[in-house]
Amino acid sequence: MAKNYFPQAIQNLAESLARLPGIGPRSAERLTMAMFNWKSTDLQILAEQLCQLHEKVVVCENCGNLADTELCFICSDPRRDRALLCIVETFLQIPVIEKSSSFKGLYHVLGGRLAPLDGMGPENLNLQSLKKRINEDKVQEIILATSPDMEGQATAHFLADLFKDDDVTISRIALGIPVGADLSFADSASMAMAINQRREID
Amino acid sequence: MAKNYFPQAIQNLAESLARLPGIGPRSAERLTMAMFNWKSTDLQILAEQLCQLHEKVVVCENCGNLADTELCFICSDPRRDRALLCIVETFLQIPVIEKSSSFKGLYHVLGGRLAPLDGMGPENLNLQSLKKRINEDKVQEIILATSPDMEGQATAHFLADLFKDDDVTISRIALGIPVGADLSFADSASMAMAINQRREID
Repeated sequence: MAKNYFPQAIQNLAESLARLPGIGPRSAERLTMAMFNWKSTDLQILAEQLCQLHEKVVVCENCGNLADTELCFICSDPRRDRALLCIVETFLQIPVIEKSSSFKGLYHVLGGRLAPLDGMGPENLNLQSLKKRINEDKVQEIILATSPDMEGQATAHFLADLFKDDDVTISRIALGIPVGADLSFADSASMAMAINQRREID
Repeated sequence: MAKNYFPQAIQNLAESLARLPGIGPRSAERLTMAMFNWKSTDLQILAEQLCQLHEKVVVCENCGNLADTELCFICSDPRRDRALLCIVETFLQIPVIEKSSSFKGLYHVLGGRLAPLDGMGPENLNLQSLKKRINEDKVQEIILATSPDMEGQATAHFLADLFKDDDVTISRIALGIPVGADLSFADSASMAMAINQRREID
């Protein structure tokens, strides 16, 4: 909204919405006009939800996931396997793994990954409580689920090294060709990984 | 967000945002997480902007545009030509025309267009005040800027007919090939319009 074609209240809201990722000035204008057509009560509900976002959401004191109470829904679930620990960079990765319905253990959120250029070293990761959990919860296996990019891989190697003397199995999520992908269009790095880490069919 | 992978406050906000046009459940989730990273004060500002949307925005009592005060920024501008009136379907079309910097008259918002199938007849359009304005403001020309689709065209014809006995020039915005478009890909309807309504070069 370069010029004042709209009333101030509309421009103010559009400018706030334009701060969101993927929302340009034109989309922000369109969203604002859509909201303008909402009922006042619905706008009020949305306003309350915004105010409650920081008030009501807490960080799970066990794993670092977002939570409604002190413990997140995963840490407070007695059916989860406490001997299996999946290490992720941020809480955003937990829903992705949960939706795959293939992991029944607990998580540990590092709160970042090693990125020396951005000033992220081991001291910036949530490692103290990780060590404590591995000992106290008698963890038998840790799955390193950091991202498959350079920094994520480096973080995985760092962690594998850190716990190599502990009495715990260390595994890394499998990297390769995504399921359902057309092999003709696979990228070289994934293809190389798929060949190098091929599995014998038994 | 099919399952409760996120705390309730995050899910509630995402569900509200997913009601916006073009925002699916996944985008809503992404926007919510982005907002979660905002400062609390910024969230509060956004919440206030939402609450003020209906409170602070009024409808211009002259033309039907959105406004900060009784008269919109166009109707209250003494430099605008009051003898020239542009008729639009909704206030959303006013910024589009204003951005073209080619119109210096006033607007009149119909508040819809003729759509018999949707139960929109002449009685649902803002016609009483239009007649009054044409007389009182000594309007010399009305430009019909309804949309170039079937219902917009029908509304333009209806209005042209309605004012044909008044002492006023009635014109319709030019329809044809959009400026800057590749003629190879022009649609048939626009091409036909461009041929039929061709202008002699003088």
